[in-house]
Amino acid sequence: MKLVSFVTAGTPSYGIYRDDGIVDAGARLSHYRDLASALTDIAALEALADAPADHDAASVTLLPPIPRSERIVCVGLNYKSHIAETGNDTPAHPILFARYPDSLVADGAPIVRPRVSERFDFEGELAVVIGKPGRHIQSERALEHVAGYACFNDGSVRDFQRHTSQFMPGKTFDRSGAFGPWLVTPDEAGGVNALQLTTRLNGEVVQQTGIDDLLFGVEALIAYVSQIWEVRPGDVIATGTTGGVGAVRKPPLWMKPGDTIEVEIDRLGTLTNTVIDEER
Amino acid sequence: MKLVSFVTAGTPSYGIYRDDGIVDAGARLSHYRDLASALTDIAALEALADAPADHDAASVTLLPPIPRSERIVCVGLNYKSHIAETGNDTPAHPILFARYPDSLVADGAPIVRPRVSERFDFEGELAVVIGKPGRHIQSERALEHVAGYACFNDGSVRDFQRHTSQFMPGKTFDRSGAFGPWLVTPDEAGGVNALQLTTRLNGEVVQQTGIDDLLFGVEALIAYVSQIWEVRPGDVIATGTTGGVGAVRKPPLWMKPGDTIEVEIDRLGTLTNTVIDEER
Repeated sequence: MKLVSFVTAGTPSYGIYRDDGIVDAGARLSHYRDLASALTDIAALEALADAPADHDAASVTLLPPIPRSERIVCVGLNYKSHIAETGNDTPAHPILFARYPDSLVADGAPIVRPRVSERFDFEGELAVVIGKPGRHIQSERALEHVAGYACFNDGSVRDFQRHTSQFMPGKTFDRSGAFGPWLVTPDEAGGVNALQLTTRLNGEVVQQTGIDDLLFGVEALIAYVSQIWEVRPGDVIATGTTGGVGAVRKPPLWMKPGDTIEVEIDRLGTLTNTVIDEER
Repeated sequence: MKLVSFVTAGTPSYGIYRDDGIVDAGARLSHYRDLASALTDIAALEALADAPADHDAASVTLLPPIPRSERIVCVGLNYKSHIAETGNDTPAHPILFARYPDSLVADGAPIVRPRVSERFDFEGELAVVIGKPGRHIQSERALEHVAGYACFNDGSVRDFQRHTSQFMPGKTFDRSGAFGPWLVTPDEAGGVNALQLTTRLNGEVVQQTGIDDLLFGVEALIAYVSQIWEVRPGDVIATGTTGGVGAVRKPPLWMKPGDTIEVEIDRLGTLTNTVIDEER
């Protein structure tokens, strides 16, 4: 299944995306107020997979699959080839930082180049969403906790990222990143290590990697973070980006108003956003 | 006013703490579902300041003043004397990282030493809570956006904090920090630069500083973060800690089960927590 969160007639809901339209699960499962809570009952969602479509896809406004996750954790420097090209040492642990919910927009919504910087960069990534709570999860059982996968753009403001040792200021500008278009359940995504990730800026490929080049894969990341907190449905882990980001190019390649940035992952679809300037 | 969030008879609410009891503002201002949203209408809260008390303080369970803030930002290395003692260079920008809501407990609740580490450290801090939204706020006008101040313990798991360059893993263990007991409005707090912060472990003073030793004060922090995001009611900024933390002592001084840790700030009260071990 492809699971979506959306707004229809001013009301937020969630459901199942199909080629013929969207099944409004939120209207039928009113005891689950949002997709994150419905992920605890994936059988109830599966039971609606063949229901008649309620909405034409064009008639709704997509939200990020988990619209306001309390916990969005991002991983830095996590592709082996990317680590090699930067000359950095291989990290012994995942490099983790946070984004706040306001920093993410849905597929099709504009991302915003901030007023205070022109160093606005793309980072195509695979995001994992938790469906089942757990603490101290062993790697071998980590995939049992995955609700699904999605494309993610960890849009970064590089000078603010480098203001100090801590990346977070450059990683959480309002509406600077994107997440979507939908959450693809594991049965449909298959093994993610077999998937290819491609980022395109104005149609040109700027990043490309196999997910199997991840240093800390999905299982290892879930095992690590669940030592720190009890993972909960709706937690989002953005697994890191690979080489080719704008900041390392000579000259640097920054996103600017009017650009189109796409993150595509096999089986997960394409996350497409245009770039606008923050209002002045 | 002292503003509190609490649970009474299983229901979350918020209100005004007085020596004679708590005025239940949540029951009277039902259009504001929590304290963060009520902060947009401080006049409505002030109108209840002299209402009869609804609850005996002992009959409610306190929550952190903002129980699940979407945006808890912490500042590293922000006291001038502390920077000098560490030998670090003076940062040119605030060093920012995040905590997730599950990492904070209320006054009186136990904080939890995690299963995976014994390097559990205290950090007494002043927290600022935003009451009025804004973006690109000038320092000179930043205090207009402050709803109030509170004590904060940025409890830290030092080995996880140092696993990589990014502090966040060591800063957001479930129930590792504390926030409260209440939010004190600026009219009652006075100028925070005149206040003294004291941290006590089992009654012994382990940290003490004047807030006026902050490198980036409240105004500068609000100005900086509002370049990155629109600040909103309920945003929490923990302004950083001073010298004397357990990690820099020889031998190190770690918190252990049975300990009592207190963060006291003049006019803001005392945040008291005991330490327990994570269940094994």
